[in-house]
Amino acid sequence: MTAVAVGLPDSAALRAEVTAVLEGFLDGKAGGAAKLRMPAEVIECLRDLAGGGKRLRPLLCVTGWQAAGGSGTPEAVVRVAASLEMFHAFCLIHDDVMDDSGSRRGSPTVHRRLALHHGQGRGTVAAERVGASCAILIGDLALAWSGELLHAAGLTPAQLDAVLPLVDDMRSEVMYGQYLDVTTAGRPTTDVDQALRIARYKTAKYTIERPLHIGAALAGATPAVHEALSAYALPVGEAFQLRDDLLGVFGTPEVTGKPVLDDLREGKHTVLAALALQRADRNQRRDLRALLGSPSLDETEAAHLREVLTATGARSEVENMIHTRRTQALRALDAAPFPPAAIAHLRHLTGSALARTS
Amino acid sequence: MTAVAVGLPDSAALRAEVTAVLEGFLDGKAGGAAKLRMPAEVIECLRDLAGGGKRLRPLLCVTGWQAAGGSGTPEAVVRVAASLEMFHAFCLIHDDVMDDSGSRRGSPTVHRRLALHHGQGRGTVAAERVGASCAILIGDLALAWSGELLHAAGLTPAQLDAVLPLVDDMRSEVMYGQYLDVTTAGRPTTDVDQALRIARYKTAKYTIERPLHIGAALAGATPAVHEALSAYALPVGEAFQLRDDLLGVFGTPEVTGKPVLDDLREGKHTVLAALALQRADRNQRRDLRALLGSPSLDETEAAHLREVLTATGARSEVENMIHTRRTQALRALDAAPFPPAAIAHLRHLTGSALARTS
Repeated sequence: MTAVAVGLPDSAALRAEVTAVLEGFLDGKAGGAAKLRMPAEVIECLRDLAGGGKRLRPLLCVTGWQAAGGSGTPEAVVRVAASLEMFHAFCLIHDDVMDDSGSRRGSPTVHRRLALHHGQGRGTVAAERVGASCAILIGDLALAWSGELLHAAGLTPAQLDAVLPLVDDMRSEVMYGQYLDVTTAGRPTTDVDQALRIARYKTAKYTIERPLHIGAALAGATPAVHEALSAYALPVGEAFQLRDDLLGVFGTPEVTGKPVLDDLREGKHTVLAALALQRADRNQRRDLRALLGSPSLDETEAAHLREVLTATGARSEVENMIHTRRTQALRALDAAPFPPAAIAHLRHLTGSALARTS
Repeated sequence: MTAVAVGLPDSAALRAEVTAVLEGFLDGKAGGAAKLRMPAEVIECLRDLAGGGKRLRPLLCVTGWQAAGGSGTPEAVVRVAASLEMFHAFCLIHDDVMDDSGSRRGSPTVHRRLALHHGQGRGTVAAERVGASCAILIGDLALAWSGELLHAAGLTPAQLDAVLPLVDDMRSEVMYGQYLDVTTAGRPTTDVDQALRIARYKTAKYTIERPLHIGAALAGATPAVHEALSAYALPVGEAFQLRDDLLGVFGTPEVTGKPVLDDLREGKHTVLAALALQRADRNQRRDLRALLGSPSLDETEAAHLREVLTATGARSEVENMIHTRRTQALRALDAAPFPPAAIAHLRHLTGSALARTS
């Protein structure tokens, strides 16, 4: 669920096309919903959420198409790319319910908005329950509709056959990653492998590798192309998540737009936390255990935690890991059997995404 | 989400086949999950849930196949039928989170089970939150995997093409129905049409019509067959839900296996409640408003509510509505262009399901 800065050369046009597909799809659903006397808020929430975002996954999907030799951006490829964005809306809505987040992309989250909307005549607890239930169902609809967008994309039987198993894998992978994330939160351990596994499933595969694979499969990619995409995507995706972990702790809230204490208060099982616990002396370990995941963490305690994360060497080790992965990804591109334009896109993405400050 | 008694002639064999498909699928997932070091509980919860149930939707799917002239029960049809059962597991898991139900099919619900499983070292609130998050994610996986079972069922491109839009509609319909159900709960009104709409979407279409349509589409059904299936399915499905509403209020807990106060405490916007509110005098209306949806409702108050629901004539009017719909469904069968065996199956189902006591 990591947000990354993107700047592919022709990305503005593609973003506009993806937005047009999503709006057209939701307009159709709005018409159907009105006939069924369904509350308009269902569509409005999805329209607002799907209207935003950096469109990273759609951009990667089209880059995968081009990497496998596809030319231009045919309508069907754009529609598949848009289906990934609807799937992402599903992920965000359920994620926000699970974390009970208050805001997303500068607006109230879906469950908060609907708790307010349906709050009249209900007590606080009942309103929160209705808000969460509505958000679970709107997320379910977004998941179902991401399938519908894919099914109606106008693919050939061969394309559908190639893409469906990859979409199925992507769904399971991000859900597995989230499951590990949710069940380990609040009690980080020294297990760096487990933390990397979470990063791989919930970010590297979901955000980078599978969108590339899906686009490539539409162009009938060979196994060699799929492997070369993975060789690039997995290190770069892990590096994204590692950068995100650092920004969540050391970032400037004015730049990241994210309350800087949230990550520490949640006490997610990150590589940063695992390395710090490994390297801490007795006093440091005691402080990490007491403060990581403390819901009442204040600014002073957070400042102390940052000192410990730095003093143990965990922070600089994570920077090293990002550097290693960036080098690995760029080397994979050197050897990749993609057309030069696709390689240039991916190289550009790597640079802008890993050096980001938000 | 209505449970109904079923007794199709050759149903035992089909139930066993569906169970075998689901077990085989989950065995495969368990192997994969172990390799990824995913907690075994994810698969175990689905195995336990998908192992139970009356298999109504799979039975109807195969009946739809036969109604449209399909013969026997080919492997691919059984696999599609099994995918409906995995989808149903998704519905039940999210439904139980939304209602915060404690038990399902005689066992703790998924979110309760996982709150306990992950509760060690966490406070009650944190454990409940983790349990709910895990259940949301396992429900998401069940939804994704229902798609995977369908995609890998071995259908021809023409079959896949015919079935995907129906599956997409089924998903949206039950989610819409649940959305109306959740947002109207606790404040029933006199709007009988709205209550019938909820029954139609969350039960009649989801439980009866779409499984029949999906099976029929696999056999290349004509529009006339689809229409004849709807003419049967919608009245019988509404009648199912109306019967369920009556059993939820007047049923014997020892027979229904359901705490008899739950429905009254939730104050769902049912046809029964809407009719009672329409027909109530001032005192009765006051009591209905005060007691329907009261979380602290006791046995004495429940007994009074039952008296009011009976005295207003709402109870007998719902019985009339069930009778009318049963007659309508049976007449639709008289005119239906199905093979005699399929008609006999559907006739048998109508009788046993609408006369049920649990």
